[in-house]
Amino acid sequence: MLRKILILGAGKSTSYLLDYILEKSSIEKLHLTIGDINPEGIPSSIKEHPSCTVIKLDIHQDKDRKKAIGDSDIVISMLPARFHIKVAQDCLELSKNLVTASYISEEIQALDKAVKKKGLIFMNEIGLDPGIDHMSAMQIIDSIRSKGGKMILFESFTGGLVAPESDDNLWNYKFTWNPRNVVLAGQGGAAKFIQEGTYKYIPYHKLFRRTEFFEIAGYGKFEGYANRDSLKYREAYGLQDALTLYRGTMRRVGFSKAWNMLVQLGMTDDSYTIENSKGMSYREFTNLFLPYSPTDSVELKLRHYLKIDQDDSKWEMLSELQLFDAEKKITLDHATPAQILQLILEDSWTLDEDDKDMIVMYHKFGYELNGKKSQIDANMVVIGENRTHTAMAKTVGLPVAIATLLILNNKIKTPGVQIPIAKEAYDPILKELKNYGIDFKEYDVPYLGYNPDSVGN
Amino acid sequence: MLRKILILGAGKSTSYLLDYILEKSSIEKLHLTIGDINPEGIPSSIKEHPSCTVIKLDIHQDKDRKKAIGDSDIVISMLPARFHIKVAQDCLELSKNLVTASYISEEIQALDKAVKKKGLIFMNEIGLDPGIDHMSAMQIIDSIRSKGGKMILFESFTGGLVAPESDDNLWNYKFTWNPRNVVLAGQGGAAKFIQEGTYKYIPYHKLFRRTEFFEIAGYGKFEGYANRDSLKYREAYGLQDALTLYRGTMRRVGFSKAWNMLVQLGMTDDSYTIENSKGMSYREFTNLFLPYSPTDSVELKLRHYLKIDQDDSKWEMLSELQLFDAEKKITLDHATPAQILQLILEDSWTLDEDDKDMIVMYHKFGYELNGKKSQIDANMVVIGENRTHTAMAKTVGLPVAIATLLILNNKIKTPGVQIPIAKEAYDPILKELKNYGIDFKEYDVPYLGYNPDSVGN
Repeated sequence: MLRKILILGAGKSTSYLLDYILEKSSIEKLHLTIGDINPEGIPSSIKEHPSCTVIKLDIHQDKDRKKAIGDSDIVISMLPARFHIKVAQDCLELSKNLVTASYISEEIQALDKAVKKKGLIFMNEIGLDPGIDHMSAMQIIDSIRSKGGKMILFESFTGGLVAPESDDNLWNYKFTWNPRNVVLAGQGGAAKFIQEGTYKYIPYHKLFRRTEFFEIAGYGKFEGYANRDSLKYREAYGLQDALTLYRGTMRRVGFSKAWNMLVQLGMTDDSYTIENSKGMSYREFTNLFLPYSPTDSVELKLRHYLKIDQDDSKWEMLSELQLFDAEKKITLDHATPAQILQLILEDSWTLDEDDKDMIVMYHKFGYELNGKKSQIDANMVVIGENRTHTAMAKTVGLPVAIATLLILNNKIKTPGVQIPIAKEAYDPILKELKNYGIDFKEYDVPYLGYNPDSVGN
Repeated sequence: MLRKILILGAGKSTSYLLDYILEKSSIEKLHLTIGDINPEGIPSSIKEHPSCTVIKLDIHQDKDRKKAIGDSDIVISMLPARFHIKVAQDCLELSKNLVTASYISEEIQALDKAVKKKGLIFMNEIGLDPGIDHMSAMQIIDSIRSKGGKMILFESFTGGLVAPESDDNLWNYKFTWNPRNVVLAGQGGAAKFIQEGTYKYIPYHKLFRRTEFFEIAGYGKFEGYANRDSLKYREAYGLQDALTLYRGTMRRVGFSKAWNMLVQLGMTDDSYTIENSKGMSYREFTNLFLPYSPTDSVELKLRHYLKIDQDDSKWEMLSELQLFDAEKKITLDHATPAQILQLILEDSWTLDEDDKDMIVMYHKFGYELNGKKSQIDANMVVIGENRTHTAMAKTVGLPVAIATLLILNNKIKTPGVQIPIAKEAYDPILKELKNYGIDFKEYDVPYLGYNPDSVGN
């Protein structure tokens, strides 16, 4: 008998997810139903696949939504995260398992008891980050523990970047996900983490100057800045006693220091709107943040304000964004600085049709075993194929697809609202991901971490 | 027949207000009733004055509050601003005039039509800033206009500082008003102003590096940083066509650049709480904001982080606050950085009993008359007597008291919810303030402003 999978929302990021399920449809006896508000956008290769049905579905039409969910054996929600709760409530009522790549919201978490009572599985955070980070970290942490090791340090960094072969700007960066999130990254409070048992707090205006560096063999150097809350998974990972917990975002070396110029100017601020933004030139926008002068140029004022030497490469990075262009006009009215900056950056940082993106992830695991401190570094690099088949879509979509099959096949069977940190989830998913080139390289390295003995005097 | 004045709330800042009314009670036939939740705190010289009655009044007891208001001819509310609305509603209902030194809230403004209909006067913003700034500015602006002048520039700065004779710390600053407001000053959004017709926005983390300087004869040099919204009174003052509008806060030269160090570290952040703050040393608090190192000192890390030379006087300013003291402990639990910083600063910046405070105000008025640009600078300095009779209490309390008498005597008679920008208000009040040493010095100066001709190439 066919097992019926319902996918709600088939945006750009679902290419690999749909391909994987349809590829397995014959051998696994699957039928896929895609419910989307705009089914016209779905490629005909998918629509016309014999194991696929596409329905036009408005998620806010309760009757239609319940009907679609009721007709399925398992539901995957790729909708914007705020819509998951309605789907989850239906799944609970109609006794269907659910898979999402999103962070567990408080209201979804609140369903846990009822979900367990019905023996259902609501698997969340099973994309890239969150998702592959959980699984790859827990696999190594559990392996260290099974040998008797005690975790003392965990650091984890992820970045969505542009592949070297498509990297043609000075920032070594293009947008591969929601540009607004990139512009607002790090805002809303100080970054918090713990190093060698000492809490550390970095305010937003210093965040991009407190980077650490990584090297990945064959891919060169990267840098990482801290995420808002590095302590988020302390309990979930069982790292209550680890002295160092640090999570962050990866960029190419030099990005953060240059981005900090935009932060210092105030261009990333999303808290107020600019008077008369529509029709303002990029140059006038830049000048909003600089002291008034009747004679000095915007360029010299900015160099002086940010203390940029005439031969500083950061200067060229600003010029490349056309921030001093008096002809280019802002098309948004009553926009915040952040909205305007996003518009300006999209001119420079949008992927071309043939551009390839690149996902990088880097973990460090410090542990103590038999009185000796050791460290494992693990990293993953995934390169995309083009603007549609991105590494981002692949690393988000495949874990979702694989988890869905494992739940259907009763390989993942522990009920509850959960994230993929149990061995029954991460082992088979990581194994299958390897077949698709999503793989970690592990290195035993000396425990350098923050070891006093390793620091020179 | 006696005219009955009711004052609600008799905190520390009301010393001059009470003295003035009682001093005038005989000649002006006044009786003063003070309603306060803690009448024990009122000095016996006031309580025992024959023209004064003190009642214990809980402002939240509707019946008691209405009774007290009903028994009076005019009401002064010196309560925290959030309580004014209840008083205002009663005054409207019972047809009583009202005076407050606070900013007009939206809900008070909404009473305007009803207040006018009843022919009542609700006078607000009649303290120092807001208050004396409105009156002194409007007097000069109206005088310029009456000669046919056109306003092109208005700048206004106020500071509550310590008097030179009591100034014994490197910051040249002590708390003379609510310390919390000082710690949080400038937060909550970018500062916005207009210079020569160009809007300018300064993010918080740059605010204290964008100061301008002033000199006041006999008192030396000061600096000013921008307030959140310099455009607030543009319409009220009739300055829609002025090219430059800039309002700010005054400090002694060097304060802002040093304060910026605390901002850069993240110590003024009020948006999150510190883990285990209670019992933490001042030194540990400082170290929260610095990179971890097993060997480097907090001192060297901070110098390096903020790029402070070994011989920089800002270094001594930090040391003076005991930020590196490993013995002094924080007594607050689960406190925000801003709350902890306030505690630390109160150790150093609290007025001694005999310390004198100092209020400074500086206005610049640029105008065009008969084709010529000119400028008037006006400034005011008021020195306090001691920690109780502060210049702050004097400059807030006397305008309130004087306005109250003028309303009783039908000299201020235009009804409505208002601020003191009409000649009928500012002329007699400023005149009476002179008798108490609150006086502006005016200087005709060349229009330097932002005049292109005056800037060298």
